[in-house]
Amino acid sequence: MSEKQQLLSPLNYIPADIQSAQDYEYLARRFIAAPNYEYIAGGSGRDQTLASNLAAFNKWAVCPRILCDVTKGHTGFNLLNREYAHPIFLAPVAYQKLAHPLGEIESARAAEAMQSCFISSTLATQSLETIAATGAEAKWFQLYFQPKLEATLDLVRRAETAGYSALVVTVDASIRMPSLGALRAQFKMPDECVAVNVQHYEINPSAEIAANESRIFQGAMREAPTWADLEWLISETNLPVIVKGVLHPVDALKLKNVGAAGIVVSNHGGRSLDGAPASLDCLAAIRAAVGDDYPVLFDSGIRSGLDIFKAIALGADAVLIGRLQVYALSVAGALGVAHMLRLLREELELCMAQTGCATLDDIRNTRLQSA
Amino acid sequence: MSEKQQLLSPLNYIPADIQSAQDYEYLARRFIAAPNYEYIAGGSGRDQTLASNLAAFNKWAVCPRILCDVTKGHTGFNLLNREYAHPIFLAPVAYQKLAHPLGEIESARAAEAMQSCFISSTLATQSLETIAATGAEAKWFQLYFQPKLEATLDLVRRAETAGYSALVVTVDASIRMPSLGALRAQFKMPDECVAVNVQHYEINPSAEIAANESRIFQGAMREAPTWADLEWLISETNLPVIVKGVLHPVDALKLKNVGAAGIVVSNHGGRSLDGAPASLDCLAAIRAAVGDDYPVLFDSGIRSGLDIFKAIALGADAVLIGRLQVYALSVAGALGVAHMLRLLREELELCMAQTGCATLDDIRNTRLQSA
Amino acid sequence: MSEKQQLLSPLNYIPADIQSAQDYEYLARRFIAAPNYEYIAGGSGRDQTLASNLAAFNKWAVCPRILCDVTKGHTGFNLLNREYAHPIFLAPVAYQKLAHPLGEIESARAAEAMQSCFISSTLATQSLETIAATGAEAKWFQLYFQPKLEATLDLVRRAETAGYSALVVTVDASIRMPSLGALRAQFKMPDECVAVNVQHYEINPSAEIAANESRIFQGAMREAPTWADLEWLISETNLPVIVKGVLHPVDALKLKNVGAAGIVVSNHGGRSLDGAPASLDCLAAIRAAVGDDYPVLFDSGIRSGLDIFKAIALGADAVLIGRLQVYALSVAGALGVAHMLRLLREELELCMAQTGCATLDDIRNTRLQSA
Amino acid sequence: MSEKQQLLSPLNYIPADIQSAQDYEYLARRFIAAPNYEYIAGGSGRDQTLASNLAAFNKWAVCPRILCDVTKGHTGFNLLNREYAHPIFLAPVAYQKLAHPLGEIESARAAEAMQSCFISSTLATQSLETIAATGAEAKWFQLYFQPKLEATLDLVRRAETAGYSALVVTVDASIRMPSLGALRAQFKMPDECVAVNVQHYEINPSAEIAANESRIFQGAMREAPTWADLEWLISETNLPVIVKGVLHPVDALKLKNVGAAGIVVSNHGGRSLDGAPASLDCLAAIRAAVGDDYPVLFDSGIRSGLDIFKAIALGADAVLIGRLQVYALSVAGALGVAHMLRLLREELELCMAQTGCATLDDIRNTRLQSA
Repeated sequence: MSEKQQLLSPLNYIPADIQSAQDYEYLARRFIAAPNYEYIAGGSGRDQTLASNLAAFNKWAVCPRILCDVTKGHTGFNLLNREYAHPIFLAPVAYQKLAHPLGEIESARAAEAMQSCFISSTLATQSLETIAATGAEAKWFQLYFQPKLEATLDLVRRAETAGYSALVVTVDASIRMPSLGALRAQFKMPDECVAVNVQHYEINPSAEIAANESRIFQGAMREAPTWADLEWLISETNLPVIVKGVLHPVDALKLKNVGAAGIVVSNHGGRSLDGAPASLDCLAAIRAAVGDDYPVLFDSGIRSGLDIFKAIALGADAVLIGRLQVYALSVAGALGVAHMLRLLREELELCMAQTGCATLDDIRNTRLQSA
Repeated sequence: MSEKQQLLSPLNYIPADIQSAQDYEYLARRFIAAPNYEYIAGGSGRDQTLASNLAAFNKWAVCPRILCDVTKGHTGFNLLNREYAHPIFLAPVAYQKLAHPLGEIESARAAEAMQSCFISSTLATQSLETIAATGAEAKWFQLYFQPKLEATLDLVRRAETAGYSALVVTVDASIRMPSLGALRAQFKMPDECVAVNVQHYEINPSAEIAANESRIFQGAMREAPTWADLEWLISETNLPVIVKGVLHPVDALKLKNVGAAGIVVSNHGGRSLDGAPASLDCLAAIRAAVGDDYPVLFDSGIRSGLDIFKAIALGADAVLIGRLQVYALSVAGALGVAHMLRLLREELELCMAQTGCATLDDIRNTRLQSA
Repeated sequence: MSEKQQLLSPLNYIPADIQSAQDYEYLARRFIAAPNYEYIAGGSGRDQTLASNLAAFNKWAVCPRILCDVTKGHTGFNLLNREYAHPIFLAPVAYQKLAHPLGEIESARAAEAMQSCFISSTLATQSLETIAATGAEAKWFQLYFQPKLEATLDLVRRAETAGYSALVVTVDASIRMPSLGALRAQFKMPDECVAVNVQHYEINPSAEIAANESRIFQGAMREAPTWADLEWLISETNLPVIVKGVLHPVDALKLKNVGAAGIVVSNHGGRSLDGAPASLDCLAAIRAAVGDDYPVLFDSGIRSGLDIFKAIALGADAVLIGRLQVYALSVAGALGVAHMLRLLREELELCMAQTGCATLDDIRNTRLQSA
Repeated sequence: MSEKQQLLSPLNYIPADIQSAQDYEYLARRFIAAPNYEYIAGGSGRDQTLASNLAAFNKWAVCPRILCDVTKGHTGFNLLNREYAHPIFLAPVAYQKLAHPLGEIESARAAEAMQSCFISSTLATQSLETIAATGAEAKWFQLYFQPKLEATLDLVRRAETAGYSALVVTVDASIRMPSLGALRAQFKMPDECVAVNVQHYEINPSAEIAANESRIFQGAMREAPTWADLEWLISETNLPVIVKGVLHPVDALKLKNVGAAGIVVSNHGGRSLDGAPASLDCLAAIRAAVGDDYPVLFDSGIRSGLDIFKAIALGADAVLIGRLQVYALSVAGALGVAHMLRLLREELELCMAQTGCATLDDIRNTRLQSA
């Protein structure tokens, strides 16, 4: 194996050539095995939505303002009765051992160090209890509905017990397919990547599908959650329930009406329906539908503080960082993720300073310009 | 001849690296001789319309919906008093022995196996009777007007006798030219590709064109069908007559008024007038012109279930698959075509499931978003 | 010198691989010395307008119509009281010996053979009398105002005597610069390329420019023609005066009002002001300004019969062919130019037939579709 | 070191292959060390705004007009009670010894020779007094607010004493970062590049930032100038104060109201906020906000006389040339800069002549066309 191909172990320092948060994306290629990198970097299908997510940010420019006094500036805000120092949260990314031997433990530590909120995935490779034990203060649990309701409820109770302060129910992943790129790179989940939270739950026996039935409608979708399931969940827990994977304003408004505590505008980073619109392109209409005060988070496509500025200007309260989290994790573990968060925050602050925005509310009152 | 260049015989299994219907496009290069591939893949002239056909789909995004119950979902619909399990038909593609030694027999078998409708070409390399004898239940006959009306009428009577349930009259191919790409690859119809349906019909003697006459207007167009020819045909047969090659809403409405049973919005896959608009770009205006209940089929540019979803959302009742049919035929004969149809159908169902559409009517009520 | 680099002499047959008029463009590289090819193919400056000219055609699509009877179709029309068989004229291209040893004699012969109109350049490398002597029936003389009015008038009288039936005054070339590409290829007019029409006219002594004067305003533009010069010319000749190089509707209307017999909408094939709009983008507004009946010709960017169709649909009565003329001339002299004209005409007729247009007036009543 | 890599010393003649002002851009690569070139050529971050600056010009075309008499044409105009022969000024570019051993002395000499206005940078590598001593008549001083007000005031008094006739206060550079390209090329300011104007001023002690404070808001921005600082400056000097770095019409109007003598619409050549809109895209709205008579200069993206024409048509009184100044300086010192200015002026005049504009006011009355 040539030196070039040899994978580096995670570093215990920050490489000198990281000048921006996005630089982790390129560097990570040297720290993640190629098929795993393809799996992480790819979306679904032909990666059309993945590409749209990035292109959507380039449609907007941010107009600088001059001579403003921003020395009292800060990025703090309140969400669901908690103060956060900044609006940059760590998205629930599954199977983080793909990127680092300790997986989610490192990411959670970085979140705590940088005053971020960590959202722990149902499909984490560390148990939700282990992750909670890292001491991260602001932490939410991302919930996938399980085939059996008992299992779903058990996950909820465990999250409550472990001290998670909100549930993030992902509803856009009923059927997921790796990108054609990952399939071609022959990606296969490594043995050490086990979804330990759910590995012992009973699974429904493989459904029999009649000859004239559809593997999609009567097969895979049989276990997909419905509005009734969501309402049941909301009634079963005192934790606020945030719904992730919302792109349509009608769905957003309905979620508000059935009691969801907030939403995440997201197309799963381009990993769900290939052909879905860019997440950013859906944001403004959703904010308009739910009103100014309803919690709206955003993910899919954030690569810089400038991107965060744009998402907030278009209606987001906070953003979730998925791929950059994993890339930084692969390069330097908790240190890398913390550094990446710091870079994003300073990139956001730089953009705020140059546009005369001292607070996130000032961003919200900024009108983006067509690029 | 190097291994790379050597053409593979059609397989009797599905290659492992086919992950989507469109993958047959790339794989087919190894199963079809290069000039033939150029002929099949190319459009006409400089392939501008061919490129537009594909680009037109990328102007649209499909917005996912959440938490819908689609377990009763299906893709069935009624067309011309027959129930179909799904809206994915096999287009009338001429000269299928270019792709497989058995040609149309294999495609027709696949159509039957997958409950599709097979549209047999006038220029098939198997006779319409042979194709009918494969037992395909849903089958239409594609008709080119012949130089002599007796020949045209003979084709109609043979189709009626053989059990075809509709005629698809193609009207956009009066003058056809291969793409410059195919000409440069020195494509020439192989000897074994004979249009057996029509080989014994008498042809008009080569017309004399006066010095000041045009090879186009007074030459080639002398034998092109006119409205009068179409009305004559409709009066001569009890079969429903569907007209293929419609792009203008005024033509569509006139066809409805003169008694055509339906239309196919099509630019012949970019193989007719190079410079014609993308077929998809013409669809919505045509649907608006003819009203909700008139049969409107669509072809030209479909490469995935997502594309089918978009065509239906813009007004199509069903779609015709041309190039993918031939590509899959070359790779694995009837098995390949059947597999390709199954992939398309499941891609469509996946897209329906993720957008909360349980039926094709639900798709029709979906508003596409600008991408 | 390798075989590849060696220039071919003009052929006395049509090469087999010419499938469309535009194919002459590529083939010509083998028949024209590289710096000369750069000079001919290039525009001015950075070739922005050259590129815009071509791109402008791609903004439009042409919608096919079906089942029309076009067997009475033709491309004839009347212009300035003469009938033409088709609207494809040969533009006044200077220095044609760059492309063929006999230069304009060959092009003029082709025009005659193909019933086109030949427009002879002031800067031809054959005298206007020699060109007239080829017997071309429809011929116009392109006039550049000369430094001395006597010389201009002498050219006019010679053109009248030689039987030219119109003057085409080019007004967009007061200051011309080769493209940077041609400059970098070190293009220099070869000794055998002499503008014989004007070589013996007296030239004004080089003007003295004061230190604070501009080489442009007080230098080069001192000899540029003005409205007064044009009106003088119109009063001095009985020939119709057509003005070439018009892009602004206000100029077009003023020309009509001062008695110009017609105009050529043109940006000199992108060879004049680099940064000027595409010629096609200016056409519709000019036609609207001058009304339906005023002669409006068009050049700059025509490469196919489809392009001609679009120009006519947007308001042109006829089009002028510049670069393709020279390319075809280099490949096979008069034979090549005649063949190129024939291909363009048949490409136009093919497009007409497929859109149901039997006459040029039918094209004018066709609405182009956005591509 | 290979010949190709070896850097050339500045020439004392104009290289034959310079055909346009922009050609200095490419040639300069042979005269400037690679990391320095990256620093000069780059913008900030990922160079998005740098690219937008150039692309913005390509959105517009300039429509030629015919037969106009422009022999009285000139490019003169009045600004702040001084007559200028043309509207092409030299932008305040810092650290010009990066490009030439004598730095700003050469540029200032070129400005004088070509009747341009030289704007001397606070961060020049020659003192403002040395630059003034070159005898340049039209000269302004670009002022950066210094950490200590005494130092700022000292710079103002020195500029007044040295005979500068205006102050240009740059307000968009509170926080600057080299482009990622320059960082990757390991750019580092060479030892000989010293900002001699300010090297002896006292600097504030490094500020302590509390743990919960931001390096941006409470760090770098602590010393950024505010509206109060600007008003103080205007009150302290009799020189007209022009503010550079304005992109928002509200800021422009406020500057007019607080007594700024004029503004420079600029995004610092894409070197400040990456993600800011193209400077040209902001120009028309700003001109509309401040009215016809208020001095509005423009920079960021000018590479040709055509670009200057467009900027004036969209509202600029004059333009500032940054990068081309440095490129020409590197190639041939004062001679190169003077030649570059001459080329730009003649390119502008050529464009004026071909559009019938005899004066800058005529340009202002010209409507650009969409390209």
